[in-house]
Amino acid sequence: MKIGVIGGGQLGRMLALAGTPLDMNFVFLDPAPDACAAALGEHLLAGYDDPEALRRMAESVDLVTFEFENVPAETVAFLSQYVPVYPVAESLRIARDRWFEKSLFKELGIPTPEFADIQSQADLDAAVAAIGLPAVLKTRTLGYDGKGQKVLRQPADVSGAFAELGSVPCILEGFVPFTGEVSLVAVRGRDGETRFYPLSHNTHVGGVLNLSIASTDHPLQALAEDYISRVLTRLDYVGVLAFEFFEVDGGLKANEIAPRVHNSGHWTIEGAECSQFENHLRAVAGLPLGSTAKVGESAMLNFLGSVPPTDAVLRIADCHLHHYGKAFKAGRKVGHATLRCQDAATLQARIAEVQALIARG
Amino acid sequence: MKIGVIGGGQLGRMLALAGTPLDMNFVFLDPAPDACAAALGEHLLAGYDDPEALRRMAESVDLVTFEFENVPAETVAFLSQYVPVYPVAESLRIARDRWFEKSLFKELGIPTPEFADIQSQADLDAAVAAIGLPAVLKTRTLGYDGKGQKVLRQPADVSGAFAELGSVPCILEGFVPFTGEVSLVAVRGRDGETRFYPLSHNTHVGGVLNLSIASTDHPLQALAEDYISRVLTRLDYVGVLAFEFFEVDGGLKANEIAPRVHNSGHWTIEGAECSQFENHLRAVAGLPLGSTAKVGESAMLNFLGSVPPTDAVLRIADCHLHHYGKAFKAGRKVGHATLRCQDAATLQARIAEVQALIARG
Repeated sequence: MKIGVIGGGQLGRMLALAGTPLDMNFVFLDPAPDACAAALGEHLLAGYDDPEALRRMAESVDLVTFEFENVPAETVAFLSQYVPVYPVAESLRIARDRWFEKSLFKELGIPTPEFADIQSQADLDAAVAAIGLPAVLKTRTLGYDGKGQKVLRQPADVSGAFAELGSVPCILEGFVPFTGEVSLVAVRGRDGETRFYPLSHNTHVGGVLNLSIASTDHPLQALAEDYISRVLTRLDYVGVLAFEFFEVDGGLKANEIAPRVHNSGHWTIEGAECSQFENHLRAVAGLPLGSTAKVGESAMLNFLGSVPPTDAVLRIADCHLHHYGKAFKAGRKVGHATLRCQDAATLQARIAEVQALIARG
Repeated sequence: MKIGVIGGGQLGRMLALAGTPLDMNFVFLDPAPDACAAALGEHLLAGYDDPEALRRMAESVDLVTFEFENVPAETVAFLSQYVPVYPVAESLRIARDRWFEKSLFKELGIPTPEFADIQSQADLDAAVAAIGLPAVLKTRTLGYDGKGQKVLRQPADVSGAFAELGSVPCILEGFVPFTGEVSLVAVRGRDGETRFYPLSHNTHVGGVLNLSIASTDHPLQALAEDYISRVLTRLDYVGVLAFEFFEVDGGLKANEIAPRVHNSGHWTIEGAECSQFENHLRAVAGLPLGSTAKVGESAMLNFLGSVPPTDAVLRIADCHLHHYGKAFKAGRKVGHATLRCQDAATLQARIAEVQALIARG
């Protein structure tokens, strides 16, 4: 089976590593000449809106999927004329616009921070008056890893904030005094069968995911599964979807969804019976889903900017290196380490070892 | 790091899948246009004795390794002028000739069936008189998966047997009434550090490996480790080496070694903390070795001739598919399944499920 992937970054690379043993071949559409997935398949070097490249991809593959959600709606519509596209267009439309996303949460009865649509500075002033400070102003589209957002702490931060983010459509979100951040990765097959990984407990630094620890019997697992199921069913979703939540007062408030494999699920490569990458491919290909059960105690640490020397990473017991083969650049996600241990105490010790290695720079 | 691999079959393919996350890139030299590793690296389409191709490979890679041992000695010598080659030439010279191999076992005090060098039918007649029947006549080189050998059960089988195998140098081996077949996969680093996987219990059908089950606390583990260590040290070996033994009277008799990753170690992809493929690459690259500890109870079943439908394989719980992307052909190794289970009883049940699927054809 030949799979077309829009995007050829590390998520595409890990999809190909998971899919090759299932007899899948990959074609990546990516305008970057050094797209790091290219080593594992065919690389269509073209823009996401290049009709000639899209047509060539559609004609040569059995289905198309995405490694990121910020794809023009026209791209999805164009491809869908020729070939099955998963996840379905509606999921992408919702997930790439924070206003649609939050509105869906509200419609489905999923608690989420207060929010308001912001089309002007006047809208912003009114929304701040209603929601209060602190609050976070975010562009409706194209935001990721803390980009395209601004925290408004005091009235002085508000004036001019809309222009600072480019005078593009935004939403304002009330600040949530959360005690933790968790994400649920789920996979739903073409037939509607759904499986859930254990909740990941996530730590962000400067808006970028730093550490994910797979939970065991998390008390909010069932609630998170309920919430994500509402979204999956409503969108008739196919593939892996990640749902990020704030832990607030012993409950959950929805932050955002990602209609794709997700950084907080990278631990599943070694830490789960069947990884999020394999399960996404199984789902979109109409194959039976794999087990989402944990294998040992597991965590993932991102390497940002650079990957420590390979021998130093591999010297740490229980540590698995995932180097993305990307050029090093400050703040860029260039690799991660997965830890898989016998017990939680060992896992904590190993996390400290990897963190110490990262700190050495 | 760029790795040159002589051979681009399934072993090369699985090496590339293991090495890509370590930031390794691969160049495969293989005369077959449809070499199944080619999807995961650069493919030099040339013979193993093509000096131009060998020079091009040597100039573009950091080191060269092998996915099979039947490489001309001249190839190894030629490459070694330009680039480090692992395992070392002497290992390949020994392992590809059954006479050298058995002679080494004898020299190192490792029990092995009686054997004799056969250069003519007269040699064979004399050897049969000395060793007795039944016995097995094998070509000294180029034999694998039961090819290049003939079982001699009665005197009538002996006459003309040397010509039947092509009148090439052979050895005669006394038949061993074994109770089981096991193999030990070990990895030795450039610095001499050595690690051992648990013994695999192997079942062959028609000379071809059918099923490997990873053992737990096998009573012969220590003995097998002693024997393989003698070989590793004597050859100053670097990389993964597999040693196949017969279980005889509660002890071990050496059958053969393979200076490479081995079919009986395929279960380590999911069934061990660090797979034989990753550990081979770590060893030849001078990186720290990974843990050879088991993760759960594990077994591997070969798919010969064809791979059952993907959805049927993936429907079996605890089952991981490894499709080699090769054209189906009677008897050809075209894929395998790894099972990884919580306990031995579940593993046996799952093995039966996969066997039933294979039997359905």
